[in-house]
Amino acid sequence: MQKVDDKIRVIRVPKRGLYDKESIYNILDKEFMCTIAFIHKGIPVIIPTLYGRHENDIYLHGSTASRMMKSLKEGIDISLNVTIVNGLVLARSAFHHSANYESVVLFGKAVLVEDKEEKINALKHVSDHIIKGRWEEARQPNDKELKATMLLKIPIDEASAKVRTGGPSDDKADYELDIWAGVIPFKRSIEAPIPDEVLREGIEVPNSVKNYS
Amino acid sequence: MQKVDDKIRVIRVPKRGLYDKESIYNILDKEFMCTIAFIHKGIPVIIPTLYGRHENDIYLHGSTASRMMKSLKEGIDISLNVTIVNGLVLARSAFHHSANYESVVLFGKAVLVEDKEEKINALKHVSDHIIKGRWEEARQPNDKELKATMLLKIPIDEASAKVRTGGPSDDKADYELDIWAGVIPFKRSIEAPIPDEVLREGIEVPNSVKNYS
Repeated sequence: MQKVDDKIRVIRVPKRGLYDKESIYNILDKEFMCTIAFIHKGIPVIIPTLYGRHENDIYLHGSTASRMMKSLKEGIDISLNVTIVNGLVLARSAFHHSANYESVVLFGKAVLVEDKEEKINALKHVSDHIIKGRWEEARQPNDKELKATMLLKIPIDEASAKVRTGGPSDDKADYELDIWAGVIPFKRSIEAPIPDEVLREGIEVPNSVKNYS
Repeated sequence: MQKVDDKIRVIRVPKRGLYDKESIYNILDKEFMCTIAFIHKGIPVIIPTLYGRHENDIYLHGSTASRMMKSLKEGIDISLNVTIVNGLVLARSAFHHSANYESVVLFGKAVLVEDKEEKINALKHVSDHIIKGRWEEARQPNDKELKATMLLKIPIDEASAKVRTGGPSDDKADYELDIWAGVIPFKRSIEAPIPDEVLREGIEVPNSVKNYS
């Protein structure tokens, strides 16, 4: 359990706040797209990017030409969010409408991964997080590609999760109304893989894709 | 078309950048969850929240007790992002792996909606954006609820979209490799609505839910 200070405390609807590492890792592991906020020329900038979690770190990779990566590697303050929407919650009153979601907000500073071996491991962590087993199937990065890629790691030390589940919660008197209430659940599903148009004949769908869920 | 200055220009992979209102509205209308970045006590803070678009404005609603809403209503600089992930792009090389996505980044300042009539309209815009037709079915907000709710609007004047579609793009030599390449497409689907456990008997699933897609 982390120290829960004002920075990470869930202020709105505090009962939805979770601060244990297991809950936080669990949400981070369900997604691979996050948004990152940083200050650039005095204004907040928000950018979506892929990530991987390995142990207690978030790994980001990007081009060495990326404005975000160049800014982040200086060790400036950043805030990172992952949000998964699981449903719409329809209450009897317009006021009590809500959404079911799981989200993590993380504060911290990025550290540049410089050592070549560590960089390759970090890339593998990102790849494994997004699609397990693909790293071993793909052509490995060469020196030129490694040089063009920046790897950053952010420790998961100042983070909180916020989760809403379940049905609507209405004011007592509203339960008498003739208004439907309930949840529309969402699901992100995977459709059949689409082979590259110029894929050479005889190459089968690999295990990473077959096992992807 | 907006003026494309350095603030909104897509820097990484410029050909993926779109600046026309139609493309931006189109992406904003597919989602209802955004992330917002603002500066609080000198550090960037990122918070996910529901939104609605109506004409050239984004509307946000929240509790008057919300730290984010209280900060935003002061007219500070904010950055807003909407990202939709449509697939994983598996290239032959680890280096060229990517994702298909549609995203919008918006810069601006929020304006407080104070007039009661305007506030109700703004709430309806958010509701209509998230689930068309629900506003008319639900019990309308009373004065106490309206007082507890803050409405903000942000003009869509400094925004850019970034979109990646299609299959992988590999280095020429890699097309000879015996490695599968293609796309795993994602789809967000709706599951059967779950009625509230204490829903009164005889209340049918309403049109807003039947027509929801």
